[in-house]
Amino acid sequence: MGENVLKAIQDEYPDDFAWCYGCGRLNEHGHHFRTFWQGDQTVTIYTPSPEHTAIPGFVYGGLIASLIDCHGTGSAALALHRKNGHEPGDGETPPRFVTASLNVQFLKPTPQGVPLKAVGTVEEIHPKKWKIETEVYAKDVLCARGEVIAVVMPKTFLQPSQ
Amino acid sequence: MGENVLKAIQDEYPDDFAWCYGCGRLNEHGHHFRTFWQGDQTVTIYTPSPEHTAIPGFVYGGLIASLIDCHGTGSAALALHRKNGHEPGDGETPPRFVTASLNVQFLKPTPQGVPLKAVGTVEEIHPKKWKIETEVYAKDVLCARGEVIAVVMPKTFLQPSQ
Repeated sequence: MGENVLKAIQDEYPDDFAWCYGCGRLNEHGHHFRTFWQGDQTVTIYTPSPEHTAIPGFVYGGLIASLIDCHGTGSAALALHRKNGHEPGDGETPPRFVTASLNVQFLKPTPQGVPLKAVGTVEEIHPKKWKIETEVYAKDVLCARGEVIAVVMPKTFLQPSQ
Repeated sequence: MGENVLKAIQDEYPDDFAWCYGCGRLNEHGHHFRTFWQGDQTVTIYTPSPEHTAIPGFVYGGLIASLIDCHGTGSAALALHRKNGHEPGDGETPPRFVTASLNVQFLKPTPQGVPLKAVGTVEEIHPKKWKIETEVYAKDVLCARGEVIAVVMPKTFLQPSQ
């Protein structure tokens, strides 16, 4: 299923913004989600750990929400980067997005022990605001749908608010 | 802020359904969210760990989504249990809900290092389907809003699907 991805967008985030629990390569405790192009769609593949349980045998919804969230911000970064003429691996630093809203519909219980594949379709709302529609599959079964509105990281993230 | 809660609904879930990564008391790796009544509203209080980072200094959105998710199912369980004449601690096993949909609006960057307080308002759609509107505060700052539609756990959760 392509888990050995060479060029994920998260590999290119600046070090200061690579600490996300979901997708930061520098967060040693995190999930290390990695998002890449597959044609005109974006893909993130992740196999939940045994402790990511909802009811025994099924994946925790918060993990699925996390996957959709980081897949959304990564997909937006891929899309704006491509619009700007760049692809992961070409040496250019990509934009960094954050999530404005996250919507998840849990369609079926998601079985544990198999890789989950998030497949995203990205749409520009305006250059700093993108919508990502995501489907999450376990094997070939559609288990969840998500929508993320991602915005270019605002300056309020550079320093904790009061 | 009332972190020493004696009677949370998750304390009463049957052992077989107490393994949730978010709120299962038996999941040694999980968050152990605990949800209780405060008047007519429901409350869950949780201090994220240092690794639950989005951008350094701010809480990971997936953690906030997880908090809203389990707070929602716990709140629905509290509400149906109360409707049935019971309160946590009275010896009666409460109903167990799962999440049908989860919607999160991230209003402000959420600072790390302080307890988060999720405050929920519960509304019955029908006896097996409840809506929970949640506000998440860091200190007294409203950082996120969520809506969960929770349904009584269907039988499909009793055995992994094919």
